[in-house]
Order: sequence, then C-alpha cells, then structure tokens
Amino acid sequence: DIGGGWLEGKNSKGERGLVPTDYVEILPNDGKDQFSCGNSVADQAFLDSLSASTAQASSSAVNSHNQVGSGNDPWSAWNAPKSGNWDSSDAWGSRPEAAGTQRNTANNWDAAFGHPQAYQGPAPGDDDDWDDDWDDKSSSGYFKDAESAEAGAAQRGGGRPAASSMKLPLNKFPGFAKPGMEQYLLAKQLAKPKEKIPIIVGDYGPMWVYPTSTFDCVVADPRKGSKMYGLKSYIEYQLTPTNTNRSVNHRYKHFDWLYERLLVKFGSAIPIPSLPDKQVTGRFEEEFIKMRMERLQAWMTRMCRHPVISESEVFQQFLNFRDEKEWKTGKRKAEKDELVGVMIFSTMEPEAPDLDLIEIEQKCDAVGKFTKAMDDGVKELLTVGQEHWKRCTGPLPKEYQKIGKALQSLATVFSTSGYQGETDLNDAITEAGKTYEEIASLVAEQPKKDLHFLMECSHEYRGLLGCFPDIVGAHKGAIEKVKESDKLVATSKITPQDKQTMVKRVGTMSYALQAEMNHFHSNRIYDYNSVIRLYLEQQVQFYETIFPI
Amino acid sequence: DIGGGWLEGKNSKGERGLVPTDYVEILPNDGKDQFSCGNSVADQAFLDSLSASTAQASSSAVNSHNQVGSGNDPWSAWNAPKSGNWDSSDAWGSRPEAAGTQRNTANNWDAAFGHPQAYQGPAPGDDDDWDDDWDDKSSSGYFKDAESAEAGAAQRGGGRPAASSMKLPLNKFPGFAKPGMEQYLLAKQLAKPKEKIPIIVGDYGPMWVYPTSTFDCVVADPRKGSKMYGLKSYIEYQLTPTNTNRSVNHRYKHFDWLYERLLVKFGSAIPIPSLPDKQVTGRFEEEFIKMRMERLQAWMTRMCRHPVISESEVFQQFLNFRDEKEWKTGKRKAEKDELVGVMIFSTMEPEAPDLDLIEIEQKCDAVGKFTKAMDDGVKELLTVGQEHWKRCTGPLPKEYQKIGKALQSLATVFSTSGYQGETDLNDAITEAGKTYEEIASLVAEQPKKDLHFLMECSHEYRGLLGCFPDIVGAHKGAIEKVKESDKLVATSKITPQDKQTMVKRVGTMSYALQAEMNHFHSNRIYDYNSVIRLYLEQQVQFYETIFPI
Repeated sequence: DIGGGWLEGKNSKGERGLVPTDYVEILPNDGKDQFSCGNSVADQAFLDSLSASTAQASSSAVNSHNQVGSGNDPWSAWNAPKSGNWDSSDAWGSRPEAAGTQRNTANNWDAAFGHPQAYQGPAPGDDDDWDDDWDDKSSSGYFKDAESAEAGAAQRGGGRPAASSMKLPLNKFPGFAKPGMEQYLLAKQLAKPKEKIPIIVGDYGPMWVYPTSTFDCVVADPRKGSKMYGLKSYIEYQLTPTNTNRSVNHRYKHFDWLYERLLVKFGSAIPIPSLPDKQVTGRFEEEFIKMRMERLQAWMTRMCRHPVISESEVFQQFLNFRDEKEWKTGKRKAEKDELVGVMIFSTMEPEAPDLDLIEIEQKCDAVGKFTKAMDDGVKELLTVGQEHWKRCTGPLPKEYQKIGKALQSLATVFSTSGYQGETDLNDAITEAGKTYEEIASLVAEQPKKDLHFLMECSHEYRGLLGCFPDIVGAHKGAIEKVKESDKLVATSKITPQDKQTMVKRVGTMSYALQAEMNHFHSNRIYDYNSVIRLYLEQQVQFYETIFPI
Repeated sequence: DIGGGWLEGKNSKGERGLVPTDYVEILPNDGKDQFSCGNSVADQAFLDSLSASTAQASSSAVNSHNQVGSGNDPWSAWNAPKSGNWDSSDAWGSRPEAAGTQRNTANNWDAAFGHPQAYQGPAPGDDDDWDDDWDDKSSSGYFKDAESAEAGAAQRGGGRPAASSMKLPLNKFPGFAKPGMEQYLLAKQLAKPKEKIPIIVGDYGPMWVYPTSTFDCVVADPRKGSKMYGLKSYIEYQLTPTNTNRSVNHRYKHFDWLYERLLVKFGSAIPIPSLPDKQVTGRFEEEFIKMRMERLQAWMTRMCRHPVISESEVFQQFLNFRDEKEWKTGKRKAEKDELVGVMIFSTMEPEAPDLDLIEIEQKCDAVGKFTKAMDDGVKELLTVGQEHWKRCTGPLPKEYQKIGKALQSLATVFSTSGYQGETDLNDAITEAGKTYEEIASLVAEQPKKDLHFLMECSHEYRGLLGCFPDIVGAHKGAIEKVKESDKLVATSKITPQDKQTMVKRVGTMSYALQAEMNHFHSNRIYDYNSVIRLYLEQQVQFYETIFPI
C-alpha cells in the first residue's frame, strides 16, 4: 500500500504495477465465470442487445427529438464548439428556476449530448413498470421531489413518472446547460456541505482518494417472486457485499432506481454506465436471467470499484439497509438530496494549486478527444466482434458440419464398393468427417469462452464512453461561461473577484475531470489487460484442442 | 511383383498392399506440387470451372436437346429401366447403317445418358478453334472418316467439324442405343482383330492385365507459340513420357483430339474423364496456364495409369511420334480405326467361365448403384468444399483482418491517453492485432494447400463418374436385348445358338465392366488415400502454425 488508495504489485496474477486498492481483489471475470452463458437464447439476447444499443445510438435522437437534424452523433456538438451548434437563444443570466419551462431547449441539449447508452425510460407495456411495483403508494410522488431537487426538466412520457432523461437537460448559458451551473460558478459563497469528495494530486496527477478498505458485491441467486396474489411475477436478485456479508434482495427496477440516483447526483462528474437493457419478452427464461445477472454483476462491480460512488450514501444504503423501513427512509432521503448535478462540484476541494483557464481547456479538449477516439475504437471492435460472433456460431460450424457429413457419406458409399482392403481408407475418411464435426462444435462454443468477455467489456466501456459527451459538454460550457465573463466584468455585471471565483470553480471541475480520467484509465488498462489476456489464452487453448484431434 | 500387373508393398511412402504396377511410381500429387497455384486468378478460375461443370450438368440436356424433359439427371433413365423411359420407337432389327438418320432418337439417348462432363464441342468464338490450327488442310476431312468408322451420328453444330457428342448416340434396340451393339451381339462370327485386350481373373475378380513396365508423362514448360505471322497465338506444352524421356509438344486442342479418339474407341467400356474446361478469355494469363497444365498433368497421369489406354496405339502414338509426318500418319490411322464403340468388346477374350444373365445383371446393377451413390457423394463434397473455399478465401480472412485492425486501432487510441504505464497493454493488443492479420493470411492461403487437392481429385472423379450412365446404359441395353431374344428364338428369327452367343458376348462385356471397376476401385482407394492424408497433414500443420503465434 503506497497510500492514497494505491497498491503496488499486489494482484493475484502476479502482475506488477500501481493499481487502486479497490480493484486488486475484484477480478471482473470472477463473477462471469460462474455462469456458463451457453445456449442460443443467451446468444441471441446478447446479439440483440448489442444491435439494440447500436440502433438506439443512431436513432434515439431522431425518434425522440424530432427538431434536431444533426444530433445523431452525440459527439458532434462539442467537436465543433465554435460552429454555432450551441443554442444561444436563452438570455444570459436567466434564473435557473425558470428551467422547467425550457422544454425545447432541453430537448436540443438532450439530443446533442444524449449519450447512446442513456436510459430511455420504461418501454410501453414493460411490466417491469414502476407503478406496479412499489407497495409504498406514497412513493409515487418521488419524482416530484426528485425533480425539484434537480432543478431540472426531467423529460416525461405521457404523464407517467418516466425518469426518461436524467441527463439534466437545461440550457442556461450559451454553450452549456447544466442546471445549477450558474449558481455553482457565480455564488459568492458556496454553502459548505457536510459531504466532501476529496481530490489529491498523486504521481499520476489529480486522483480521487481511494478508501482504505474496499468491497465488491456478489449478485446471485435470482428468484422468481410474485405479488398481487400471483398476478405479477418478477425476478429478485440476492446482493451480498463482501465487506458485510449480509445479503439484501433487489429487483432490476431497484437497480434502475439506483442508476438514476447516481446519474442525477454524480452524472456531471463521473460516467455512470447504463444498466443492461430492459427486455419485455423472455424475461423469465433462464438464460436471459443468467445473462442479466452477469451484467448486473459487472455493473455492480464497477460501481463498487469507484471510490466516490462506492462510498456515497445512496450506494451504501442500497446495499446495507436492514429492513423495509430503513430502505424506504433511505430511498426518500436520496430522492431529496440537493447536492446533485453540477452542485456535486461544490463538495470537492482539491488540495492543489489553482489552474489557469488555458490549461483547463487543454485538459478538457484532451479528454474529449480521447474518449471520442476510444468510443470509435470500441464501436469498431464491437461491430467486427459481433460479425465474427455470428459467423462463428452460425455459418462456419454449419459448414464444418457439412464437410464432416460429406466425408462420412463418402466413406459410407465407399464401404459399399464390395472391393477388398479399403477399410483403412474408409476409417480414415470417417474419422476425418467426425473430426470436422468436433471442430464445428469447438468453433461454435469458442466465442463464449473468449470473444464473449472482450465483447462484454467493450460493451461496458461503450456505456461509460457514452457519458462523456455530457460530462465534457458541461465542462466546455463552464469554460465558455468563464471566457465570456470578461464582458460581464467590463459592463460591471460581475466583479473581477467574481471572475476569479469562477476560474477557481472551473478549476475544481477540471481537477475532478482529471481525477476521474485517471480512475478511468487505470480501470481501462486493468480491464483490457484481463480480457485480452483471457482472450489470447483461450485462443491458444482452442488451437491446442483442435491440433491433437 | 506378384504377377498380373500387381505389385505388393512397393510404393515410396512405405504403404503396404496390392497395387497395380502402373501406379506405384506415379504419385498423383507429384505433378501438382510443382506448381504453386497461388493467386486469385487461379482461385476464381478454379471456382468458375467447378460452377461451370455443375451448371453444365443441370442444363446441358435442356439446352442442347430441347425435346427431353426429364433428362436433366443423367442417372434418371437407367435408375428406372422398366418405367418406359427407354425409347422403344425403333423397330427391333433395323439395320445399323440406318443409324445416321436417327437424329431425334439419338438426341434422346444423348440427353438421357449424356454425362455432365461430356465434351460440349468448341465454344463459339473460342480461338482454340480447330479450323485455325491444323496446317494440314487435308485433315479437315478427318471427321468424315471418323464418322463412318463410328457408324454413328456425331452431333454437329453449325456445319463445323464439332465432335460435340462422341457418346455414340444411336438407338437400335429398345433399351439400348450403342451403334454396332446389334452387330456385336448377333454376328455369327466376330472378325478376329489383331488388337487384343486381355482380361484375367485375379484375387480381386476380373482384371485388366497390367503392363510389366509402366510410365507417367510429365506435362511441363508451357510456351506461347504463334502462327500466321503472329496473328494467332497459342500455348504449347511439353510432354515427356518417363519411359522414353523424349519430349513432344502438344497444344490443348491436341489433347482434345486425343480425348475424342479415346472416347470413341474405349468410351463404351472405360470412363474417359473430360479434359479441363475450355476457356475463352484469360487463356494467356500465367495462373490460368499453370492451372490448366496442372489439370492436363492429372489427366495424363490418369491415362498413363490405365493398362488398356496407356497401351493403346493412339495413346502411344500421341506421345511418341518422331516428326510431323509420323504424327500426321498416326493421326489419320487413328481416325480410321474401326474397332471403336461397342466393337471394342470384340477385342476382349476373358480367360474365365461364361456368366449367366442373372449374375451379369446383378453386377451391372451394382456398378450402377455404386457409381450413382459415389457421384452424389462426390458432388456433395464438391459443393460444401466450394462453399468452404469461398469462405476461407473471402469473408473469413477479411473478418480476421478487421479484428486485427480494430485491435490495433484500439491500441493506437490507448497510446494517446497520456497515462503512464500502459505500454505493455498496448504492445499486447497490437501484437494480438498483428496475429489476427497473420491468421487472416494463413486462413486465406490454407485451401490452396489442402482443400485444393481434395477438390481437384473429387473433380476428376466427378468426370469419371459422369461417364458411367453411358457405360452402364450400354450394358443394360445389351442385357435387355438378350432378355428379349427368347421372343426372337420363339418366332425363329434367331437360333438358340445365336442366343447363346449373345449371352457369352454380354458376359464379355460384364467381365470388362468388372475389370474396369476393379481398376476404378484400386485407383479410387489410392487417390483418396493420398488426398485425405495430405489434407489431414496440412490441416494439422495449419493449426500447428497458428498455435505458436
């Protein structure tokens, strides 16, 4: 332990290097290996979900926000921040409270920065529907509370409490639209919150402070439950945090609630990867449940790894409530939390020198550039991987099987020749035929052993990367605001002291972004190291298996 | 040498077993290995030629004989010999000389029994056109001589001397149509020909007598020649028989001439595999020339292996003429040969007891059944092999390449992160990416190393098997004729002695068929042993090569 939540050379595979303490014990594939995701239902669901998220990425903006033409690519807007893409129709300095009425603008924002993995709200007819679930009727008012706390215009669908767009869409300043941004940047004195998110500067630059003890959370034992005298069925998962070893049960929609809370609270600073997709049909099929559990496990593990999220009250409460009453109390408290959106930055006090605006902007641009490039790279890998998956589980083994059968048929014909002394040949051809059939099934099974993990990992990263346009957009917006503040100083709308405060607060945002990127990079290196190694090992084993046949 | 042209355990690979002496020295892949059939032109031509022969099999009957509806499957007719498929419009006993006028009937026969590999005549516009080639103007009369010798109606295309249908179409008896069949079966006394084709009975049953010394013929050194002051170009191959070591040169059309002579002379008894397809365009491309040479080599080797064909005068003369004059003399002599068609059976004197008709029929049926089944089996293997070939040289390596590139792109993105200590990861991902590119080219090259030979061999067998409907049909026709002869005896049209002669002569045909089948089987076992062994060895080597990468 070299301090600051970092450990050296401690991991179980004998690798050396600095890693955050929180993931030395948590091997991402441990959970996955428990489930043999082994049949075609799971395959299909896997491919469907990949396809769905791709389709979603390209069509969601068009479908849900029809006035946006160029909004298909969530990256497009802030790749050209000077090009007039930014909506500047709102007057500078209008009150944040007026935000709720800015629907169109909000939609614009949402379309421009909505990330492809963003939660799209419950599908119509999805009987995971929240309304059906909460026995606590009073919680139907939860979104109203949440809404005021967010000071934002959560987009709604048909009057249902759809938490559709938790990306806090609000356009206050030209160039950025985070609700509360103005308040955060311009408040003479920020209220000192009890909650503190420390940032320190380590060898790798700014970093979150990693807790001294870490934990993972095992998602297991999916059980079918029912209510309303058996009219409604659902699946409940058992969650066991490794630090307490006390289990709690949660349904998918509880995860979904947590996801929304985390997005509302931390989404401006930390990418919150979306949950595995909702699914209307086949929700009770064993393979689907296994795959969803595998993905909930991966999601949970990633959340547990994060020093800020794992230590947050809402997350702790999700895992550690003792009874229904404690859970409900905690839930209401979380929904009333006011330290959400950009106000989360008010909880951060970097122990580091102030940054100048040029440096802040460079860092922000670098993050935007990297995450965009990685998003492209991961997207490409997912595309070719999916193609390869389909080939390996479809036409290729079918072809090997056909060759196998053709050879065996030929041997059968040969054996009817009545000619002596060809038993050896026919046995050899039959053997070759059988070998081909074996190769067929080896080829068909292989992707589940290696490609699967590379795909799941890349899929998770796709989700994480999809959050960055929003995060980087908020930062860019704040920077633009500071740049324009000279004008405000000149016209005496704000004092030079106000401007200094703004620069300092954008600096805090920048430290947060850098800390998060360092966390992101160390995780990325660890995750890809694991999956690439596993992949190569499994490929070698594949060829080793075929070779002696 | 255990006598009778058979050797025990002599071959160079250390295999033990009885093999005809004529192929111990002639390894079918020796010739092939000399040419690296290595680029896409050859691949395409290879696939084209496979496709072409398949298409030809299914459409030739329809295209060239439009009054035949059910004739698409060359096997269909004699699979149901009692069903009335046999054309019985011709009167029993009509004179063979009238045959030349029976065009429609001939076409029927041709359609019903035409084998898919049958020579379809020169393609229009093919500048391998015979007319352009022979300097010897008088040889334009060659087909006329040949025609009378055949006593058949060689089908013609547009007045050109197209040897289109050398399958001796002629319908004399209900149920069979071989020109000269009646003459062969009914002649009181067959002229004693100087030419003798001995048949003995060995351990494996009736067999041809294998010559004590055998030879192969090396086809090599393709050269472009020209004539008419350079207006016409052609490719000439050097043929060197291994017994004389004296080379002669031949063009493709000379092979074609030989093929026709062999078909005319031996086609009722021995399957003569067709030559590699004609090709109009790209004939001078290096890869095409190499592939054609490889196939001419395979064809030549198979002919040299055959004890009857390799010893025949026409074949010997083709390889051993000393000058242009000797070649022309030999050519004219071959074209005037009268021991052709079913009369070839008159040269055979089995040293064996007479067979009864039931046994003869059973043998014939067994051959028909086996060759049909093997044709189906080989066809299936060719179909799946072709599919696999396409995948292995097309989409599969492209996909590996894409995966390779996607991994390398990801590593490139990662390397721009500015985060320390990820060089190892990025190197590993880059390596994995390069490995995939290597695998891509290994996969793409592999079919040329193994599948190619299995395909070529099966393609050759497809050609051989395509001759059997014709051969078996002739035998069945002869058997039917004998069966019906009781009626003729009853009406005193023939004597009981005549019938005895007929049974004996059909018995000779049966011995010939059995001898040929034994030759066919021993070759089949040898050939498939070689290609399957090579295939498996190459596959193992393929996986061995990938494995250490």
